Amino acid sequence: MWLLLRAEATPETLLQALRAESLEVRVHRLGDRWALEIQGNGHLSEAFARYEEVERVFSTHDIQPLVQQWSHNVELPTWQRGKGLLWIAGPCSVERKADFLRLAQELRAIGVQVLRGGAFKARTSPYSFQGMGQEALDWLFEAKSLTGLPICVEVVSETHLPLYEHVDILQIGARNMDDYWLLKAVAPLGKPVLLKRNPQATIEEWLLAAEYLLLYGTPWVLLCERGIRTFERSLRYTMDIGAIPAVQRKTRLPVIADPSHAAGRWDFVEPLALAAIGAGSEGLIVEVHPEPLKALSDAAQQLTIEQFQRLYERANAIYTVLSRHLSEPLQA
Amino acid sequence: MWLLLRAEATPETLLQALRAESLEVRVHRLGDRWALEIQGNGHLSEAFARYEEVERVFSTHDIQPLVQQWSHNVELPTWQRGKGLLWIAGPCSVERKADFLRLAQELRAIGVQVLRGGAFKARTSPYSFQGMGQEALDWLFEAKSLTGLPICVEVVSETHLPLYEHVDILQIGARNMDDYWLLKAVAPLGKPVLLKRNPQATIEEWLLAAEYLLLYGTPWVLLCERGIRTFERSLRYTMDIGAIPAVQRKTRLPVIADPSHAAGRWDFVEPLALAAIGAGSEGLIVEVHPEPLKALSDAAQQLTIEQFQRLYERANAIYTVLSRHLSEPLQA
Amino acid sequence: MWLLLRAEATPETLLQALRAESLEVRVHRLGDRWALEIQGNGHLSEAFARYEEVERVFSTHDIQPLVQQWSHNVELPTWQRGKGLLWIAGPCSVERKADFLRLAQELRAIGVQVLRGGAFKARTSPYSFQGMGQEALDWLFEAKSLTGLPICVEVVSETHLPLYEHVDILQIGARNMDDYWLLKAVAPLGKPVLLKRNPQATIEEWLLAAEYLLLYGTPWVLLCERGIRTFERSLRYTMDIGAIPAVQRKTRLPVIADPSHAAGRWDFVEPLALAAIGAGSEGLIVEVHPEPLKALSDAAQQLTIEQFQRLYERANAIYTVLSRHLSEPLQA
Amino acid sequence: MWLLLRAEATPETLLQALRAESLEVRVHRLGDRWALEIQGNGHLSEAFARYEEVERVFSTHDIQPLVQQWSHNVELPTWQRGKGLLWIAGPCSVERKADFLRLAQELRAIGVQVLRGGAFKARTSPYSFQGMGQEALDWLFEAKSLTGLPICVEVVSETHLPLYEHVDILQIGARNMDDYWLLKAVAPLGKPVLLKRNPQATIEEWLLAAEYLLLYGTPWVLLCERGIRTFERSLRYTMDIGAIPAVQRKTRLPVIADPSHAAGRWDFVEPLALAAIGAGSEGLIVEVHPEPLKALSDAAQQLTIEQFQRLYERANAIYTVLSRHLSEPLQA
Repeated sequence: MWLLLRAEATPETLLQALRAESLEVRVHRLGDRWALEIQGNGHLSEAFARYEEVERVFSTHDIQPLVQQWSHNVELPTWQRGKGLLWIAGPCSVERKADFLRLAQELRAIGVQVLRGGAFKARTSPYSFQGMGQEALDWLFEAKSLTGLPICVEVVSETHLPLYEHVDILQIGARNMDDYWLLKAVAPLGKPVLLKRNPQATIEEWLLAAEYLLLYGTPWVLLCERGIRTFERSLRYTMDIGAIPAVQRKTRLPVIADPSHAAGRWDFVEPLALAAIGAGSEGLIVEVHPEPLKALSDAAQQLTIEQFQRLYERANAIYTVLSRHLSEPLQA
Repeated sequence: MWLLLRAEATPETLLQALRAESLEVRVHRLGDRWALEIQGNGHLSEAFARYEEVERVFSTHDIQPLVQQWSHNVELPTWQRGKGLLWIAGPCSVERKADFLRLAQELRAIGVQVLRGGAFKARTSPYSFQGMGQEALDWLFEAKSLTGLPICVEVVSETHLPLYEHVDILQIGARNMDDYWLLKAVAPLGKPVLLKRNPQATIEEWLLAAEYLLLYGTPWVLLCERGIRTFERSLRYTMDIGAIPAVQRKTRLPVIADPSHAAGRWDFVEPLALAAIGAGSEGLIVEVHPEPLKALSDAAQQLTIEQFQRLYERANAIYTVLSRHLSEPLQA
Repeated sequence: MWLLLRAEATPETLLQALRAESLEVRVHRLGDRWALEIQGNGHLSEAFARYEEVERVFSTHDIQPLVQQWSHNVELPTWQRGKGLLWIAGPCSVERKADFLRLAQELRAIGVQVLRGGAFKARTSPYSFQGMGQEALDWLFEAKSLTGLPICVEVVSETHLPLYEHVDILQIGARNMDDYWLLKAVAPLGKPVLLKRNPQATIEEWLLAAEYLLLYGTPWVLLCERGIRTFERSLRYTMDIGAIPAVQRKTRLPVIADPSHAAGRWDFVEPLALAAIGAGSEGLIVEVHPEPLKALSDAAQQLTIEQFQRLYERANAIYTVLSRHLSEPLQA
Repeated sequence: MWLLLRAEATPETLLQALRAESLEVRVHRLGDRWALEIQGNGHLSEAFARYEEVERVFSTHDIQPLVQQWSHNVELPTWQRGKGLLWIAGPCSVERKADFLRLAQELRAIGVQVLRGGAFKARTSPYSFQGMGQEALDWLFEAKSLTGLPICVEVVSETHLPLYEHVDILQIGARNMDDYWLLKAVAPLGKPVLLKRNPQATIEEWLLAAEYLLLYGTPWVLLCERGIRTFERSLRYTMDIGAIPAVQRKTRLPVIADPSHAAGRWDFVEPLALAAIGAGSEGLIVEVHPEPLKALSDAAQQLTIEQFQRLYERANAIYTVLSRHLSEPLQA
C-alpha cells in the first residue's frame, strides 16, 4: 500500500499519525513529491484516503495504476511518435571499435534513430563471451558523439550503474524483467527504460514490472515483446504477436518488438519483424552486425547491413500503408 | 515402412516374396499405383529397394517425404496462387438460411474466393450448440450454387462423410488434426483438405498429419495456423506467427492463418490477421457473421461484414506492398 | 441447454410447447429417461425449469454438473475401490499371440486387475506400425478368458465400435479426448471409459469431456493423467502431478496416472509412477512388454516384467503407508 | 573458453603468450588456483591444451563440466546425506520477532534441519509487502543462535551481500536463477547455494546456472525444483516432477523440491510434497507460518505447524519405505 502525497504536502505529521497506529511506514521521494509505503496487506485504502495530505492511494488491487494512466510524451530527439516507426539497431555485443563506429554511421545513414549495443552480456553458459564491458561502453559513447544518435544499452547489474551516466535509454533484458531490486535501482536515474518481456511473464506481470519503474522514477517505458517460451522450439522463442494489441488496450506506453531474439536465426527475423508491424508495433529493435559470422555472441541471428536495409524498407512500407487507413477507427 | 511400386508394376509377385519372408504386409491403392505397407519397425529400407517393382521406400526416418517434395498446382477455380491472397470467410456455424445466403453474396461481392460455414460443431461443453447438421450442409450447397464459390466445411466424424460429396474443401479442425483414423478416411475422397494445426502440435507433427493425407489420397493440403496453447491466456490462443515461415522452408504446400480462433475476440482479429500477412501467409480464413451478437457459437470472435471489409482492404494492401518487393530474394 | 425429464415423464407435450415457441429441439434417450436438447445459447434456464416434466436444466453455466455430482460405485469384478491400488498393465500394442498370453498370465500372477493392450494404434507417422487390428482384439479376448481379468482397449474410430462388444473398459486416448463425436458414439454402449487427458487440455476441458460421456450414457469414467505438453522436452511430456489432487477436489470419479507415456523412457517410469501415488492417484496404467527391445511401438518406454514387479511392490508399499495415515483428514 | 591452470602453475608466462597472439584474456582466481578466460568463440580448445600450465580447457561444448563431475560431500552440520530427508522450513517472510523465534523452536522440535525465512522479498507488484529487510536478518541470526540450526535466506541484490555474512545457505530465487551477474557475485563468498529453477528454464539452463556458481567458487549447490510455467493455471505452477530424476542422471548435486510455490495453495502442498519424495527428491523446502491468515506475503500457501507436522511424518514414512527397497538397483 502506497500513499502518494499532494505536491505541496510534507510527510512528517502524517507519518506520526500512522506510526501512532502501529503501522510500519517507509518514506520515499518520488520525483517532486513524497510517498509513504505502508507495510502489510489487508489495510483498507479508504481509511488512508481521508488524510488531507494524501492525493492518491495505491494498493495491490489497483494492479498497474501508473501504467494504465500514463499519458505523457515520449521524448526522444530523433523520433516523433506517430510519425514513423522507431528503429533501434546495432550489434548484440560491441566487439571491435572501428567496425562498430563504421556500422553506427551506416545505420544512421539508413535512418535508424537509436543505436544499440551490448557491453556486459548475460549468457546462458559461463564459458560464453560475457561482453567487452567498460571498453564497449566507451565505444558506444564515441558512436553517440559521432552520429548524434541516442544510445540504448542493457544493464545487468546494479553495480554497473555509475558507468551508464551517458547512456540515453537503459535496457532491462528479458532475464532481468522480474529482477525487482534492479528495477528499483535503475528507475531513480530518471532515464527512459526499454523493458523486455521475460519469456515466462504474463502480460500482467510485464506491466507490473513497468509499474515498478514508473513508481520509482522512470519517465517512460518502452515495452518490448521478444518472444515467450512455449513447447514449440523450431524457433528460439514464440513471438507473442497478440501481446502487442493486448498491451495497447491497457496502456498508452509505446510497444515495440525484437524479432532477433524471438527468431534466433537471421532468416526468420524479417517475417517476424513484418508481422510485428502488421500487429501494430510502433517500432523494432534489431541486431545488425558488421560481419555476423564473426560475432562473438548470437552470431546466428544478426543481420548484415544489406539485410537490414531490405527489412527497413519493407517494414516502413507496411507502416505507411497502415497509417493511410488509420483514420478509420475499428468499430464494434 | 511403405513400398511405393512403379506405375506399371503389380503387387502379386512381390507380395508372395515378402510373405515368404514371414513379413506382415498390407496392400494399398494410392492414386494410380500400388503400395505395400510392411508392419513392424526395424526393417532396413535398403533391403526392399532392391526389388525391381519398388520405386521408393518410405520409412519413419524420412519424416515427411511427400510433404517435402510436394510440387503440384493448387487447383481452385476462384484463386490463382501467387496472384493475391486467398480469402475464406463465413460464419462459425450456419444458423439461419436467409441470413446465411445474404452473407454469402456479400462476401462474394467483397472478393472472397471460398465460403466457409460450420454444420456439425465440436464444442467443449455438451450443453453448447452442436451445429444445425445436415440442414446447414443443404444451405451451404445452396450458397455454393447461388454464388458460384467453392465451399469449405469441417468434418468431425467419419460417419458424416457421405454427406460431404458436394463440399469442395474438407476442413480438419484443430482438435482432429491428430485423429489419424479420420485422416485415413477423409483422404481417399480425393478432395483438397484444409488442415488446422492442433494447439499442442509441433510443426513436425502437423506436417506428419499432412503426410497421412497425401499418402492416402489427398491431392493438396492447405495448412492453417490457428494458435497454440501457451501459458499466456489473455488471448484465447497464442498465434505462432513464426510457424508460417518455418513451414514454408519445409514444404511448398500453401499456408494460411486463422486469426479468429487465435484471437477469440473480434477486436484482436485484425491485428493478428495483418501480422500473418506480414509473416508471409498466403491467405486467411476469417469468421464473419450477419449479426455476431446473436451467433450461437463463438459469438465473441466473429466480425461484422463491415469489419471484414476493412480487414480485407488492409490485408490486401500489405500483400501488395510485399509483392512489389518480392523480386529481391532474401540473401545470406 | 438440456432439459432432463423426470423418470416418469414423456416428451411429447413439452416438445410441442417448445416448438410452438419456435425453438429448435432434439430428443435424446439418456438411460431410462428422456432429455430435450434446445439449440442456441442465451436462453434462460429458469424459463424451462417451470415445466412440470422437467427435473433439471443443464446449461453451459453449470460447467460439469454430472461430473461434479457423480457418486455411484465403481463396479469392477477384480478391484474394490479404496482397498488398494488399481493396476492396469500390458503392452503398448499386442503383437504376437503366444507372447501376449504368457505376459497376461504373468501380470495376473503379480496382481494386476485389468489387462490393457493396443489393437488399432494412433501413430504420429503414417509409416509407423498401426497395430494388428482385429487380430489383436481376438487375442485380447482370449487373454480375458484365460486369466479372468477384464480388458481395457483403446478406441480410435467410431467405425470400429462393433468389434468392441467384449471389451470391458473402453479407452479414449489422449489425442481423442476432445473428439466429441467419438465420445457421443462411445457413451451409449454403457461401458466404463478410461479417459486420458489431452496433453493440451486444461483440467476444465478434461472434465467437460467426461461430462459428454456421462451425459450420453457412460456409467463411470476413469480419469487418467498422462502428461501435458510444455517447453520442457527432456522427458516426452510433463506429468501434471498437481492435476491429481485438483481433480479430486472437483469430482468423486476415480483418477489414475499413466507414467509410461509421460516418461517416454523406461527408466523414468518408476519415479513418475511413485510420484503419482504420492500425489494421491488411485491406480496406474503401465506399459509392460515381453521383450521391450522388440516392441513395434513405443519400445523405449515399456517395462520388462521384472521392472514392473519392482514398481508394483514399491508403489503398493507407498500406498499402504499413506492409507495408514488416511484416518487423519487434512485440516485448514 | 576457460583455461584452468594446474595447482602449482602461475599465469604470467601463459598470459604473455596468449596476448602475443592478440587474444583478449582475463585472469580469475578460482579457489586455490588460477584460471584464464579467453574472450571470443570459435577458438579450438586443442590449441590451448598443449600449454604445460593448462590442466583443463572448458568450452561451451562441454555444457556443464563442473556440474557433471561434482562429487564432493555435502557439508551441513545438521544433515547427513543419504540418512534421511533434508527439511528446510520457515515463513515466506519473517515478520514479527517473537512469533518467528517461537516457530523456529517448534520446527527444530519436529526435526527440521535448516531454517528458512525471507528478509528482502521479490514481489510481482510494487504495492505488495517487500520484506522487513535487515531487521528480519537480525531475527534470523537470533533464531540461528537459539536453535543451533543453520539458516537459508534468499539474496535478491548484489548490494545486500555484506549483510549475509552469517547466513549459512544463500538462496537464489526462481526469478534470479538466470541473473548471472548476481551468481558471479554470490559464488566467491564460498557458501553453499540453494538454486531454485526459473519457471521458464530448461533443465540444461538450470544446470548451467549451477555451473556458473561452481566455476566462481560455490562449494556445492542444492538444486530446487519449484514448478514451471505451463498453460495449466489451476495451480500456481506445474511442478515438473520428472525434472528430479532427470537431474539425478546428470549430476550428483543434491536435488530437493519446493511444493509451496508450485502449489500456491496450502491444501495442495502435501500431495505435491509427497509426489516429490516418490520421484526421488532428497528433501523439501516448505513454507510454514505461525498464523498463515495473517501472513504479509503468500498467505494462501503457508502451512500451520500442525499441517507441517503431518506432512513431515507422511513424507518421512514414504522415504523410509523407498530406502528399504533402495538396495535393489533399477535394471535395464
